[in-house]
Amino acid sequence: MSQPLRLGIAGLGTVGVGLIELLNGQAELLTTRVGRPLVVTAVSARSQRDRGVDLSAMAWCADPAELASRDDVDLVVELMGGEGDPAKSLCQAALAAGKSVVTANKALLALHGTELARIAEANGAILGYEAAVAGAIPIVKAVREGLAGNGFRRLAGILNGTCNYILTQMQSTGRDFAEVLAEAQALGYAEADPSFDVDGIDAAHKLAILTTLAYGTETDFDAIHIEGIRDVEALDIAFAAELGFRIKLLAIAAATEHGIEQRVHPCMVQADTPIAYVDGAFNAVETQTDYADRSVFEGRGAGAHPTASAVVADIVDIARGRDGMTYSVPVTALKPLSPAPMDRHEGPYYVRLEVYDQPGVIADISAILRDESISIESLLQRGRATDANGSVPVVLITHEVGEAAMLRALARIGDLDSVRDRPRMIRIEYL
Amino acid sequence: MSQPLRLGIAGLGTVGVGLIELLNGQAELLTTRVGRPLVVTAVSARSQRDRGVDLSAMAWCADPAELASRDDVDLVVELMGGEGDPAKSLCQAALAAGKSVVTANKALLALHGTELARIAEANGAILGYEAAVAGAIPIVKAVREGLAGNGFRRLAGILNGTCNYILTQMQSTGRDFAEVLAEAQALGYAEADPSFDVDGIDAAHKLAILTTLAYGTETDFDAIHIEGIRDVEALDIAFAAELGFRIKLLAIAAATEHGIEQRVHPCMVQADTPIAYVDGAFNAVETQTDYADRSVFEGRGAGAHPTASAVVADIVDIARGRDGMTYSVPVTALKPLSPAPMDRHEGPYYVRLEVYDQPGVIADISAILRDESISIESLLQRGRATDANGSVPVVLITHEVGEAAMLRALARIGDLDSVRDRPRMIRIEYL
Repeated sequence: MSQPLRLGIAGLGTVGVGLIELLNGQAELLTTRVGRPLVVTAVSARSQRDRGVDLSAMAWCADPAELASRDDVDLVVELMGGEGDPAKSLCQAALAAGKSVVTANKALLALHGTELARIAEANGAILGYEAAVAGAIPIVKAVREGLAGNGFRRLAGILNGTCNYILTQMQSTGRDFAEVLAEAQALGYAEADPSFDVDGIDAAHKLAILTTLAYGTETDFDAIHIEGIRDVEALDIAFAAELGFRIKLLAIAAATEHGIEQRVHPCMVQADTPIAYVDGAFNAVETQTDYADRSVFEGRGAGAHPTASAVVADIVDIARGRDGMTYSVPVTALKPLSPAPMDRHEGPYYVRLEVYDQPGVIADISAILRDESISIESLLQRGRATDANGSVPVVLITHEVGEAAMLRALARIGDLDSVRDRPRMIRIEYL
Repeated sequence: MSQPLRLGIAGLGTVGVGLIELLNGQAELLTTRVGRPLVVTAVSARSQRDRGVDLSAMAWCADPAELASRDDVDLVVELMGGEGDPAKSLCQAALAAGKSVVTANKALLALHGTELARIAEANGAILGYEAAVAGAIPIVKAVREGLAGNGFRRLAGILNGTCNYILTQMQSTGRDFAEVLAEAQALGYAEADPSFDVDGIDAAHKLAILTTLAYGTETDFDAIHIEGIRDVEALDIAFAAELGFRIKLLAIAAATEHGIEQRVHPCMVQADTPIAYVDGAFNAVETQTDYADRSVFEGRGAGAHPTASAVVADIVDIARGRDGMTYSVPVTALKPLSPAPMDRHEGPYYVRLEVYDQPGVIADISAILRDESISIESLLQRGRATDANGSVPVVLITHEVGEAAMLRALARIGDLDSVRDRPRMIRIEYL
């Protein structure tokens, strides 16, 4: 038996504790798979409270930075989270010292991934981040290795479990966003400050990483168009169902003639496509590639054990001596991302208007759409005015149209006296 | 730029040609990913007919065995198929010579995988077979690496596209097996002799490989319980739909208290589980593991380009210097598989009987089930006798019950004078 691989873990939240549980529970299996034991020699966390796992054999480091320089740590596992220090400086220091790093930190990878990869590859260290994207789904490995012979047409994913849980609950109960969010918070499925999740930032962090893997481009978080799910109403979910769609928050990267699109926003997806059935805390990624065609990967998106499973996959890979490439190409071969501007996006749209039930309304709306060359695939007017305001919902599905024209039309429609409130728009994505 | 990696390809059927197309089409991308060019230096096939790809720069080997010994071949790609020679001897010779082998040959791996892995690992060569299981889905990699921290509770897959196409067509058209099979043959989706596919052998070959990966056991094809889809009738598909199920041919490996179950047979799966929606030529695998919980992988199960995509993933991995383990543990650490006998299987069952519509029939059937301690979850009797034979279908869904008791009960029920034909049984699998 060779020398153990000695791990230093920074961060003992639920994932850190889940990792120690996994390493203990699967010690024999992992030793066989790796050819040597995996041993945690040092840990660092904010407090030394009891976490239900035995830490007595591990050195305690008050300062996580110590893990980068300790002689008894071969590989650093960074589970503190946060885009900045101390996570960033710990990873930098460890990689610069030639120590491999495994992290679940999507914000860090989304904002500083390219920089960290440069340090890693220059120093013969490996940076593993399977756990940073889509929890237990081995999607980093699938894009980096499993689909290595392919160019990517599009990659679309449900990458945030909180949003997916909320949308699933809205779908099954008919309730509105605020109510379901409050319940999710009470159950611990959503944070007290939910904006990171429900505004799409978390999904965008993960998308930034996947884009780099799929397209060989430098990670460019700022180029992502981000919309969250706060504006999705129960009425939209009901109309979606009636029209054969489901509403999902998707993170999408796509190659277009204008460059690479990166966007996170609520989407209407056909009810009979695999991703439409991915409910609750599950994540999923669909890839469209030029040789493998469509592939779908689904699994738990978060949680102590699923995330620990992904961390361990990286540790095992590194222990078995995997190659030093952080992405699908060497970091020196990454190209700057050429972003497709969002107003050049093209696709079909769902539009919902609240109109006063009077003659000529539809004619006014149709004229505006005609002016912008937007053609209507279907139009749905639901009943007569029953609302105290005397308005009725009108739903339009358009054919493929440019985003800029769509936004101009919506602005003009919203200005009509016969239209109450601003028009609601949800992009339709055919998967 | 380093020296090219020189490939020798044995077998120029659709997959071999698809591979050459992929290597040509993605030459630049692959060179960047691997760090050196991939070049096909030699090929072997039964005839030198025109295949629409330029082979002029490649040496032609009349005897595939030559690829194992040529100095200008670093890695052998075996795409001839067949469990025996020449595929087997070519792989043995190449591996014994320390040359890595990439193959799409599931029969070879299912029957001689352990032996080939021994030769490979003893000679520092790598045996890649991602393309042998589930086409473009990187499931070998997912089980071997992505889920490396997990023990497997169960693995269940739709692994044969022909069966899945036939069952999907039966479902959507209401037609019977023979009719749909004939159509599939006319369209080229099924072979002239379809038995390899429709009798479950092909799915079982793939299952044997996945079992070894998931459980670290020697490949044991003979231990698989195999039933094909010939007995599935349109009536069963209709009842399945009525009861909220779909019928799929599943290949299942599961850890039980009696050992490891390996079985291929038609299953009733809930209509709302992801695998129920995997239609036509797509394959899917669901894994249930102790830390990652449920994961689902879906993609094209066959075809020139999807299979070539999987072959290239292995080539790229090998070129990047991946570890030499054939399975999830070194071949020397594989344990003999301890098979769970099929008659120890436990689960719920769907049973369809054709009974003569007379008093006391249900009482007789119920008494037999009671004698075997089989409890009924639901019973469905469809209308009065309209059939010329005066019989009506009766459908039973049982609670969890042992296979041995179920088979005894079905034999006795089939002997009743009031029951026409032998009872039909389909196992229900909750995924």
